[in-house]
Amino acid sequence: MSVTQISSIGEFGLIRRLTEKFPLTNSSSLVGVGDDAAVLDYASKQVLVTTDLLLEGIHFDLVYVPLKHLGYKAAVVNFSDIYAMNGRPKQITVSLGVSKRFSVEDLEQLYDGIALACKQYGVDLIGGDTSASLTGLTISITCIGEGEKDNIVYRNGAQPTDLICVSGDLGSAYMGLQLLEREKIAFSGNESATQPDFDGKDYILQRQLKPEARKDIIEALEKAGIKPTSMMDISDGLSSELMHICSQSKTGCRIYEDKIPISYQAAVMAEELNISIVTAALNGGEDYELLFTVALSDYDKVIPLEGVSIIGHITKPELGLHLVGREGEEIELRAQGWNSLQE
Amino acid sequence: MSVTQISSIGEFGLIRRLTEKFPLTNSSSLVGVGDDAAVLDYASKQVLVTTDLLLEGIHFDLVYVPLKHLGYKAAVVNFSDIYAMNGRPKQITVSLGVSKRFSVEDLEQLYDGIALACKQYGVDLIGGDTSASLTGLTISITCIGEGEKDNIVYRNGAQPTDLICVSGDLGSAYMGLQLLEREKIAFSGNESATQPDFDGKDYILQRQLKPEARKDIIEALEKAGIKPTSMMDISDGLSSELMHICSQSKTGCRIYEDKIPISYQAAVMAEELNISIVTAALNGGEDYELLFTVALSDYDKVIPLEGVSIIGHITKPELGLHLVGREGEEIELRAQGWNSLQE
Repeated sequence: MSVTQISSIGEFGLIRRLTEKFPLTNSSSLVGVGDDAAVLDYASKQVLVTTDLLLEGIHFDLVYVPLKHLGYKAAVVNFSDIYAMNGRPKQITVSLGVSKRFSVEDLEQLYDGIALACKQYGVDLIGGDTSASLTGLTISITCIGEGEKDNIVYRNGAQPTDLICVSGDLGSAYMGLQLLEREKIAFSGNESATQPDFDGKDYILQRQLKPEARKDIIEALEKAGIKPTSMMDISDGLSSELMHICSQSKTGCRIYEDKIPISYQAAVMAEELNISIVTAALNGGEDYELLFTVALSDYDKVIPLEGVSIIGHITKPELGLHLVGREGEEIELRAQGWNSLQE
Repeated sequence: MSVTQISSIGEFGLIRRLTEKFPLTNSSSLVGVGDDAAVLDYASKQVLVTTDLLLEGIHFDLVYVPLKHLGYKAAVVNFSDIYAMNGRPKQITVSLGVSKRFSVEDLEQLYDGIALACKQYGVDLIGGDTSASLTGLTISITCIGEGEKDNIVYRNGAQPTDLICVSGDLGSAYMGLQLLEREKIAFSGNESATQPDFDGKDYILQRQLKPEARKDIIEALEKAGIKPTSMMDISDGLSSELMHICSQSKTGCRIYEDKIPISYQAAVMAEELNISIVTAALNGGEDYELLFTVALSDYDKVIPLEGVSIIGHITKPELGLHLVGREGEEIELRAQGWNSLQE
């Protein structure tokens, strides 16, 4: 593969080369890259804005994260925040800080991943800023989306007796990360090591390296005529997100350990690494599944939804936040996870 | 001053502490910090979006830039991009990457500067992301603003015979930077050095450390009934910005050296440092003045505007981009500045 120094094409050349693969496709995207600001028309819709800053060495490790995957994930996690408002992502801006270590082709790989995510989710790249950095790679993404005034779902609308639901399964992304970290250590300083064996672990790896935002769930909820009473995406872990919803809604909650959806591969990996899979599900984070509450009266509508699990219910605030274990024991949910009664 | 480690109050504690001084004041800001995304209502207005990434060691040097000034400037340069579309900035998101070197109080100073800028320009802080970084300070700001469909001004509308105008003066911010760099060198390794002498240089220092966005000019243009045919703000230098306007408008231009507005302090400083003040004005950048073109028929309306200079006119593209020197000589404007015929 050819290697082009960024300095050889200059900042404007770089921006042109990276952004030329991004046509504007949304009617709300009037003008994208190339002026002092992008111009959007949201007509009667409300505008949703979310932003994320990703720093090399803190949020990602290029030893095991391919740049294309990184670009895809960086975009998707922002889309996820917009879906978590019951909105639809429409535009992103991407700013990069790049050290000399990176070539134009490296950045093209990163943008290929962003482009794939944009295509997959129908989002337009409308701007950004590209600059040199002294060390490493910095990615800052802002995502803008639309919501209908009466359909935006906040974190503060949960009510006692509401059902607590999650999409997909939890803990897989965390187990994928543990696997990658293990292989990285096994590899370091071991020149004779063969390629790591990821057989039968493809699902947890994909959950870590190439997560998806749950556009499908948002669409399924709409089709089923369900408007959640509260919603957020699970980026820090179920426990932490439940605390946000309960604190903003001024409620308590009770969830059941045996209802938490776990993938087979994550469970096997947890056993292999001697990690509690429930702890991984509660605190692992990065699953980008949706956590939402629905009125009890929507029970019959929720049940048929594929990929949605009811894991508990909202309670009055004075009952606190609890996980009910497999033996019926009550464990308090804590800020940085959960402490069993035995600890 | 007390020093609080960021780790002692945690990420959410930090965000709360930094953002509690930012009330929402605009009717378009429905929900700010605290959910997956902010919610805005732009009704019939169009939405303008711009973003900037600032990295320590590349865009700023904390040896001579106070954190409060840095916060003010980081916000204002984004507002400037929205004004340059003939828009009005309304919201910003601020993301920070922060190494252990910084305390909570440091970040409060930075946010004090951002808060001051927000208050001054009527802008609401609506979100952001705060994270650890391995080295230095990273600031990513996205600014959202409103524009009226028929009043947004792009870079591509200039026509031959249009007058080329700039606000304020050019080159001062660059001369301020040269002064700060000189004092930094004079100071380094010189423990006995006295405080640097900035007497009579306050204006160029302010232009570098605490620039303003030209909200006043945008308002004056509106009041005078002038809609520029093209506009942008001068962040990289007059020469580079003129090239953007001419290339996007498919025109040439001719500007006159003796018409370029220069401040007295910048001229004195240039002489002291043996730098050409015209080069500083053409290529220095960071003045955040507005460069715009108006139809020749608006000449009578432009003349009375305070703080606006007519520096030349737009030509047909085949005439190229030229600076006419004091002796009438023609100098071609180049991408990274200008080359005189003598060179």
